[in-house]
Amino acid sequence: MGGTGSRALRIALAGLGTVGAGVIRVLDTNRELIARRAGRPIEVVAVTARDRTKDRGVDLGRFAWIDDTTRLAEAEVDVVVELVGGSDGPALALARATLAAGKGFVTANKAMLAHHGLELAEAAEAAGVPLKFEAAVAGGIPVIKGLREGAAANELARVTGILNGTCNFILSKMEAEKRDFADVLAEAQALGFAEADPSFDIDGVDAAHKLAILASLSFGTKPAFDRVGIGGIRHILAADIAEAAALGYRVRLVGVAEAGAHGLFQRVHAHLVPQDHPLAHVTGATNAVVAEGNFVGRLLFQGPGAGEGPTASAVVADLIDIARGEAGPPFAMPAAALADAGEADGSDRRGRAYLRFAVADRVGVLAEIAAAMRDAGVSIESLIQRGATADGSVLVAIVTHEGPERCVAQALERLRGSQSLTGEPLWMHILG
Amino acid sequence: MGGTGSRALRIALAGLGTVGAGVIRVLDTNRELIARRAGRPIEVVAVTARDRTKDRGVDLGRFAWIDDTTRLAEAEVDVVVELVGGSDGPALALARATLAAGKGFVTANKAMLAHHGLELAEAAEAAGVPLKFEAAVAGGIPVIKGLREGAAANELARVTGILNGTCNFILSKMEAEKRDFADVLAEAQALGFAEADPSFDIDGVDAAHKLAILASLSFGTKPAFDRVGIGGIRHILAADIAEAAALGYRVRLVGVAEAGAHGLFQRVHAHLVPQDHPLAHVTGATNAVVAEGNFVGRLLFQGPGAGEGPTASAVVADLIDIARGEAGPPFAMPAAALADAGEADGSDRRGRAYLRFAVADRVGVLAEIAAAMRDAGVSIESLIQRGATADGSVLVAIVTHEGPERCVAQALERLRGSQSLTGEPLWMHILG
Repeated sequence: MGGTGSRALRIALAGLGTVGAGVIRVLDTNRELIARRAGRPIEVVAVTARDRTKDRGVDLGRFAWIDDTTRLAEAEVDVVVELVGGSDGPALALARATLAAGKGFVTANKAMLAHHGLELAEAAEAAGVPLKFEAAVAGGIPVIKGLREGAAANELARVTGILNGTCNFILSKMEAEKRDFADVLAEAQALGFAEADPSFDIDGVDAAHKLAILASLSFGTKPAFDRVGIGGIRHILAADIAEAAALGYRVRLVGVAEAGAHGLFQRVHAHLVPQDHPLAHVTGATNAVVAEGNFVGRLLFQGPGAGEGPTASAVVADLIDIARGEAGPPFAMPAAALADAGEADGSDRRGRAYLRFAVADRVGVLAEIAAAMRDAGVSIESLIQRGATADGSVLVAIVTHEGPERCVAQALERLRGSQSLTGEPLWMHILG
Repeated sequence: MGGTGSRALRIALAGLGTVGAGVIRVLDTNRELIARRAGRPIEVVAVTARDRTKDRGVDLGRFAWIDDTTRLAEAEVDVVVELVGGSDGPALALARATLAAGKGFVTANKAMLAHHGLELAEAAEAAGVPLKFEAAVAGGIPVIKGLREGAAANELARVTGILNGTCNFILSKMEAEKRDFADVLAEAQALGFAEADPSFDIDGVDAAHKLAILASLSFGTKPAFDRVGIGGIRHILAADIAEAAALGYRVRLVGVAEAGAHGLFQRVHAHLVPQDHPLAHVTGATNAVVAEGNFVGRLLFQGPGAGEGPTASAVVADLIDIARGEAGPPFAMPAAALADAGEADGSDRRGRAYLRFAVADRVGVLAEIAAAMRDAGVSIESLIQRGATADGSVLVAIVTHEGPERCVAQALERLRGSQSLTGEPLWMHILG
């Protein structure tokens, strides 16, 4: 069955950072178990990285060292594993060269897949070789497999997820310790949970890369990263999280993708998540994805979204699949069958909103905000004004009734430049 | 890729109850989508069921009708789907005949797999055909795939799960509405969430079947249903759930399997689950499984555990895998490589316990219970006595410190037959 035989699956590994070294550790530590499950041994035979001399805590002497990343594609291997990162450059060159050479390709590179996934899937299918990327989305959680195979009998209507562990760590900590964003970010950086330049994470770009991949898999559409609406978390205050909690919500950075009548809708944005929703219980650096299918209903996949062990676990799961003879197109159906994503226009989208204004403490401010809402046709469900912040501003938090999002945008437009506002308003969506 | 070609995968279907009719509905409704994902059409060509005339809401006229279940194995098909149920009888005869005929076999039959899974896996491997059973555990949740493939790079230490939707529905409703067991069971039966004879569900047998399958997959051991310790939920009172809630726990029927130094430990039992544990948030008929791996950490799979749509979704996911050319042994590694489960002796197991006594309302009762605990070496963390119940008994609830479970058993043994007790004590484990 599967024709796997007992010949080892030979691997070349590009990138020996945390995850790359982790892959070697997984293959060493669980060697016998993996061979039994895979039907044959999995053996790294060649490696490359920027710095040959750095101590990574694993013995590299047994592997061939190849200086030029792209030439790894010429090594005598079955599969090349790419853990270099970056949407273009050496990673993309290696992917193209590997697939052109008729070898399998495994990667954790979400940025590359979000930008070039279609091209790479076409190349893999043309060559008849596997292209796999479980580690690219939600770290150790087998959610690519869960959507591509586990939920394959279903037409999926919606996929939502907490896809960035750094943001979830920060938001959870802000909530638990009632601290503000900048303060918690600094601590996360000191602990290694956030990068020195954290913008890809905290501004939602990393989550958007992952969402574009999930959407393609879920809805049979071409990956369309440039049509993801992207927002981040850096303007959220501890006071926003406290207001949300008082209303029965938790604040999370959530990616939402929906296959609608007007094409694919994709957005990464801060959301108020009802406390009885599965994503509300996801704390710390954990990731989670909820998929809604027309027969299965709502599935939840949850687990560690990053880190050496979980990410390496996902890479090696892909290798085991390949060793077993796993077949099938990378994005669940042939690249040629993937539909165009259509317009990402969400202007007729409806929902409830949380709006928070920092305003000057003087007569008439509330009336001005309320009038802007009324004139734009936004119906207010609740409004709370709390005492002054450190800089003397007053916070006004509004929850709207369900209505068109474009009305909310119009209301904010009407208030733009108002002397009453002491800062940019914050708009968070309420997850329905 | 995968050599699937475009020839249809032909299916014979045994059993046209809720799930069987659901499989036909899924294949009809999502026909085009499934063909794109599977690489070829999936077509039911022959069916069998007890009653040919019953209206199931699907057109059966297009399928060959075969009266004798076992003879379905002789139909000109690639795969037989068994949804008849029962650990032996026609289901087992069909499984044996199908595999002997060199055809693939897909089943939702947890009882048959728990009792005969090893034999069937050996037969499938000998014939070089797939044996798949995603629908047998946790309904629509792709947890078999998640453990067998998604977590395949890991040595798993422990698998815990809420595996019976009927029990979880009852316990959730008892908690939310502060009602007692018998009352809620009657309502669940009226609503169709519980069988007329509910004992397989509420006494833990159904969950134990599923746990034995998960344990085999997770730990590379032969399925060992007869070594699962089994308890149910019928003696739990609304008062127990209220005490648990006051202590920060929820009451759930949890299956626990661990690969320990002394062999496999498997138990289905009512547990107090800490409110910050993922299983505490699983309400209603939902199922969930937590797997703990040595690299990935803790993974959670959650979703609908039963019902027509979810279960049919899992059956069809197996068929799509087969159509794609999915390969590999049924229990993650070859049957010949599965280890013996070893002794199921949990006598040196340690943990914390919740004990509840219904006692006569008179002097000296508490002293008697406390003395029995002391004499057995059980250390008490908290003890609460609440006012009398309807029958005049008083409830005494004890939470122990961590200690050997055998000491708790000894304490209960000391109290056996005591005139102070007006009913059997209740023992629930506290999930660590």
